Parts: sequence; structure tokens; C-alpha cells
Amino acid sequence: MRHYERVDNPLEQLSTAELRARRSLKWRAYDRDVLPAWVAEMDVPLAPAIAAALTAAVARGDTGYAHMGRLAEAFCGFAQRRHGGWLPDPGRMRLVPDVNTAIGAVLPLVTGPGNSVVINTPAYPPFARTITAVGRRVVASPLRRDGNTGRYSLDLDRLAHDLGRRDVSAYLMCHPHNPTGLVATRAELVAIADLAEAHDVQVLVDEIHAPLSYPGVPFTPFASLPHAAADAAVTFVSPSKAWHLPGLKAALAVAPGDDGWATLRAMPSGHGAGLLGVIAGEAAYTDADDWLDALLAGLDSNRRLLATLLTERLPGAGYHPPDATYLAWLDLRALGLGDDPAGALLARGRVALAAGPSFGPEGLGFARLNFATSAARLAEAVTRMAAAVD
Amino acid sequence: MRHYERVDNPLEQLSTAELRARRSLKWRAYDRDVLPAWVAEMDVPLAPAIAAALTAAVARGDTGYAHMGRLAEAFCGFAQRRHGGWLPDPGRMRLVPDVNTAIGAVLPLVTGPGNSVVINTPAYPPFARTITAVGRRVVASPLRRDGNTGRYSLDLDRLAHDLGRRDVSAYLMCHPHNPTGLVATRAELVAIADLAEAHDVQVLVDEIHAPLSYPGVPFTPFASLPHAAADAAVTFVSPSKAWHLPGLKAALAVAPGDDGWATLRAMPSGHGAGLLGVIAGEAAYTDADDWLDALLAGLDSNRRLLATLLTERLPGAGYHPPDATYLAWLDLRALGLGDDPAGALLARGRVALAAGPSFGPEGLGFARLNFATSAARLAEAVTRMAAAVD
Repeated sequence: MRHYERVDNPLEQLSTAELRARRSLKWRAYDRDVLPAWVAEMDVPLAPAIAAALTAAVARGDTGYAHMGRLAEAFCGFAQRRHGGWLPDPGRMRLVPDVNTAIGAVLPLVTGPGNSVVINTPAYPPFARTITAVGRRVVASPLRRDGNTGRYSLDLDRLAHDLGRRDVSAYLMCHPHNPTGLVATRAELVAIADLAEAHDVQVLVDEIHAPLSYPGVPFTPFASLPHAAADAAVTFVSPSKAWHLPGLKAALAVAPGDDGWATLRAMPSGHGAGLLGVIAGEAAYTDADDWLDALLAGLDSNRRLLATLLTERLPGAGYHPPDATYLAWLDLRALGLGDDPAGALLARGRVALAAGPSFGPEGLGFARLNFATSAARLAEAVTRMAAAVD
Repeated sequence: MRHYERVDNPLEQLSTAELRARRSLKWRAYDRDVLPAWVAEMDVPLAPAIAAALTAAVARGDTGYAHMGRLAEAFCGFAQRRHGGWLPDPGRMRLVPDVNTAIGAVLPLVTGPGNSVVINTPAYPPFARTITAVGRRVVASPLRRDGNTGRYSLDLDRLAHDLGRRDVSAYLMCHPHNPTGLVATRAELVAIADLAEAHDVQVLVDEIHAPLSYPGVPFTPFASLPHAAADAAVTFVSPSKAWHLPGLKAALAVAPGDDGWATLRAMPSGHGAGLLGVIAGEAAYTDADDWLDALLAGLDSNRRLLATLLTERLPGAGYHPPDATYLAWLDLRALGLGDDPAGALLARGRVALAAGPSFGPEGLGFARLNFATSAARLAEAVTRMAAAVD
């Protein structure tokens, strides 16, 4: 196991050769000459507490079926410390393998055949697939984009219209938002809750990126609002994004309110979750705050570095640093790379970004870059992008 | 990490105190004074090759999204060595989180709304739940049970009738069979293939227990038959049962034939599988045959020991040692414990078996016991059962 001082930036711990030894999707999906910056994996070692917990689990052969253990209580402690004192009831949570699987299990419980579900676009691609797979329709409610700064915000007028549609029975909110990194204010969340209550719309909230809100950006869990719509809400959380655990398959569906819990209790149970994900998640939520702080400092530095790098080497690119997440949503429409710049960047620059059009029509000419890597590799990514444009 | 000689019996490696430190479902679902012998977890340390692969993965932070890696090739090598030279095309396999999830994804592709699916009862409980969850109906086709020996066999006359029903479009075969441990002969499998072809029934085969066929019991993969029904079949395999990896979430859907592969290609993709399951599975299929042989020797001893123990301490129990698996399907109808003997054994004997009625009406008065433990704990389980009856 790798040892390092906790104050060190986790993003600067691993060499590219060490990363290329990984067998995960990020590092195996493309040829070895490609620098991957697409899927949401981080180029970090595990937090020491997590690595220790997993190594001990392997040593005792603890690889049987997942039991929820103390994951709910661990999340509650984290939420209280990091999300404004929010203390949801740990008895009102269900263990699920991942957020998307859980959304697919909950949607049929809160919507009827032919109903529509609102999502904010550009949108994390699995959302539309999951809504469609369970026989519901997607209503795309675009975020507002400031043409000068590239900053995204909620379009409450548009949301009022879309949530008021007769066919709409649920709003699947991604908060913090993927791919734009938008964090809503408390006032905006209250406005959404008012709209949801007025139109009898069930709110489902993907808060998987909440631990990755940057210092100075207050994150308010939707379900923490004193509001009927928050009482009915179901929230999905996971340690997977902030502690680099997507392959371990553990997440929580959280419904502290009476109405939300009535929904969640009806969710079919299954054995889809992973035991090592539970064990890692407990360690993440209880004994890795300092590691997360060091990570966030490194990511904060990178989100600013990216702005500098783009200004210097790829001035045609539009970018506004996110409020949360290690995802940069890049406007590359001015570069002449067509509707799918990621395809051209891969072919000509040997750098892999996530394809903008997969996030919906608002993604034409855009690409998503994952900057959870070392400063050197981030610079190399931008250099490769620039080379593809020249 | 625990070290031991490869020739040692893995079932005799761990103390009860070490097992009670586990955080898995088997060891956490009941109070600490209960001896658990219910869910399909084994009381073994991991095979050394698997433990080493997992420990190395944790050390390099290899916990990102699952990539299929060389799991398919590894399974092919195992199948060739252990399943009669069968060498399916590794290019015709899909990575899935577990067998049951994959069945739920494939069933809608091969059956229509209102269609029925045949299963052999008593049946692994998730089968009926999954069939129902995707909007299909269950047709229970009971196995034949020899009233004198307690041995189960396929009832081909009954299967001919059930597969010939107009509403039946698929047969979900569990082979080796859970909970009875039945392994079909090659001639029986050919007869099934003939019936499936004659009635245009899609065969889906859960072969998750195949590596646990006992010495002297030849196992024939259904898809290895030179037959049109085998060409169309989809087979589900996983290292989870034989190497104690259910919490790591990796399995394969296998369809070497043209028709089966056409089905499998249409299966929606997802991120449900676990990367550590892939990594562990590659090690299991390539570098753990000797460990599996030692395990099978220990299990073989236990399946005989259980017969002796029951004869001595619980003579009213009916039991025929299985052809495969570490599951004993016990006929406890003569003990006066009612329809659900497992409930009485838990309450009065503090030993947890799987409830027979959850396997269907044929399970009334039955219970399933997992004997993948030490001889001492197996004896203790039978002693507790006997105490509950006295």
C-alpha cells in the first residue's frame, strides 16, 4: 500500500505509469497513447482509511453479500459535518448499487405509464436512458447559460413551465449538476420546492457530487428544506465520486420525510450492491474528511489552472470553473471541430474527453473534461487539445 | 493477509471469531448467538491468487468503473480445463453484475408481454421475482423426487408438457440446480434441447454452480451441445459461488451461438458490474484451480459428514447429498416443525437455514442448509437443529 502525508495533494501522488497499470474503464477503454480525461474516475490513490479498510476486508475474506452495516449512520455523520448540520434519519435509507440503478427502481413507484420526467439539460447521459427504459418520457428543461461568462444557472421560469405540464409527474434534479458543476442557492431550491408542491411533482435528487462542492460554495441538501416537497423527496448519494469508488457499487437512497420514506420502502430489494463498497463508504464518510479537504484544495487549484491553460493554449475554448465536481464543461464551438469535438480531439490529439452531444442537443460543439488529475497531466491534456486544433 | 498451504482444506482455515468479524449479510443479518448456515457465502479465506490480486488493486487505487478486461478469456480457459473442453468464443460474452440482474435484462428481449417462463421447482427464490418484475408469468415445472432416497431428477414428461404450453416462450434452467444440487446428464440436456427446439422455446441457463460439481460428476454446459437450441441459448456464469465473491458484483452472460449472441448484443449496457469482481474473477478462473480442488475435497467430505450427522442426531430429516453445490435441501416434514422449519430452528435452536417455502410450494416443510463451513461448525449446526426438535 502507498503511504503519503495527509496534507499532500492526492492528485499529485501517482505517476502516469502507475495509472496505466489500472484495469478500470478510464484506463482500458482507449489505446495506450491516449490520455484519458473522460469518465468520472480520479487519478488518486485511495484515502488511507479506505485502503486500510479494504485491505483488511480482503484479508478476512469479507467478500460475501452486501449488508448495509453502518453506512447510513456514517453518511448521517458526514452530512451533519459537511452539509450544514443536516441530520437525516439513518433508518430511512436503503442500500442500492448506484444512483442510476436506484433511479430506475424508484421512477416506476412515483410515476405512471406515459408520464414524463423533467431533467435539466445538458444532462448526464444515463438519466434519459433510464427514464426511457422504465417507459417514461423525458422533458428536457435547459439550464440558462450566460453567453459572456459561460456560467450556467437554473432557469426557474422555464422550470415553472415544464413542471406545470400535465404529463409531468417527476423532476429528476442533478445537484450539484453534471456536467456544468452548478450548485443552486437555498432560495432557488425553495423556489423549486414551491413549484413541485404547486404542481404535485415528485422530486428525485441526485446529490452524488455534493461532497465535491468547493470551499465557499454552500451546499444545501434539497431534503433538508422544511417543505412538503422536500418531505416527499428521495435523494441519492454515494461515496463513489468524491472518494474514487465507482467500481465498488454502493450508494444510498435517502428519504427522511414521511412521504419520501413511504415511497422508498416500496422499492424492491435486491442483491445488487457491493459489500466492499459499503465497507469503503463507511470509511469514506467517517474517517476521510482530511483527505477530502486535501483533494478539494487540489481540485480547486486545477479548476483555476484549467482556465489559465485554456487562455494560453486554446483561447477559443469557453469555460467557466464549476461550483462543484471535477468536471469542466467546455464550449468548443469556436474551434471548428464540428458537433462532436471530443471525437476530433481523440483522433487528432490523442486525448479522450466525454462527447458533448451525449448530454443532449445543448452539448453540440461541447465536450466534458475531467480535471481530477495532476497539474502536469492536465497541462498535457490541454496541449494535446491545442495540437488537435492547429 | 492470511497464508496457508494450498493443499489445506479452505473450510478449516477460519475460526468462528474470525468469521463473526465479517460484515457480510451472512454474518450480520442475525444476532450474534445465531449460527448462520443460510445464504450462499462460504466460511473460507479467499484463494491466495484472488487475495493477492485484490490487495494489489486496492494498493493502486484501482476502484474505478468496471472494464471487462480479460474476464471472458479467463472463463474460456477455465471452461476448457474443467467443463469437458468447452471453448466458447470470448468475443460473445457480456459483463454483468450478477446472474439475476442479467436474467432480468435478457428476459424482455426473448419473451413478449403476457408470455410465461418455465422454472423447475423448488426454485431459487429470485427467479420468480425477476420473471414477475419484468411482466412475465411463472410456470412451475416440479422436479421429480424419489420418495425413498430423497434424490431429485428432471421430470422430462412434465417438462415436455410445460414447454409445449402456448404461453411459454422461455425456459430458465438452473444447472446445477439450486437448491437440490441436481446435475443433469448429457442425454437429459439433449432431450431438453429437442423439446426447446420443437416448441420454439428460448433456453436461458444459470450455470453459476457449475465449478462446484463434485469429482466424478461430469458437468456438461448446455451451450456446448451441437444443437439449434444450444446455439440460441444464453448462459450465465460467475465466479461468485465457487470462490466466495458474491459481494464483488461480476458475472458473464455467455452466448457462443449466432442466435444467442444476437440476443445478447441487444442487451442494454450499464455500469452495474464491479471492477474488483472482474479482477478477482480473472484470478479465480486462471490461477485458483488447486484451491478449488482443495475446496471441493472439503465440501465432498462435508456433504457425506452431513449425512452421518443427520442419521445420528436428527434421524427424521430427509437428505440426499447433492451432485454439486454446498447446499443441502433438507426434508424436515417428519419433525413436526410446521411448514417453515427454518423459522422454528432459528427460534428454538439459534441456527439459521434458508426457509423452504421461499423456494415454492414444494418447499413446505423443507429448509436449505449451507455446509460450506468447518466440520465442527457443521456438527454444531446439526446439534442446534436437533436441540430445537427435542
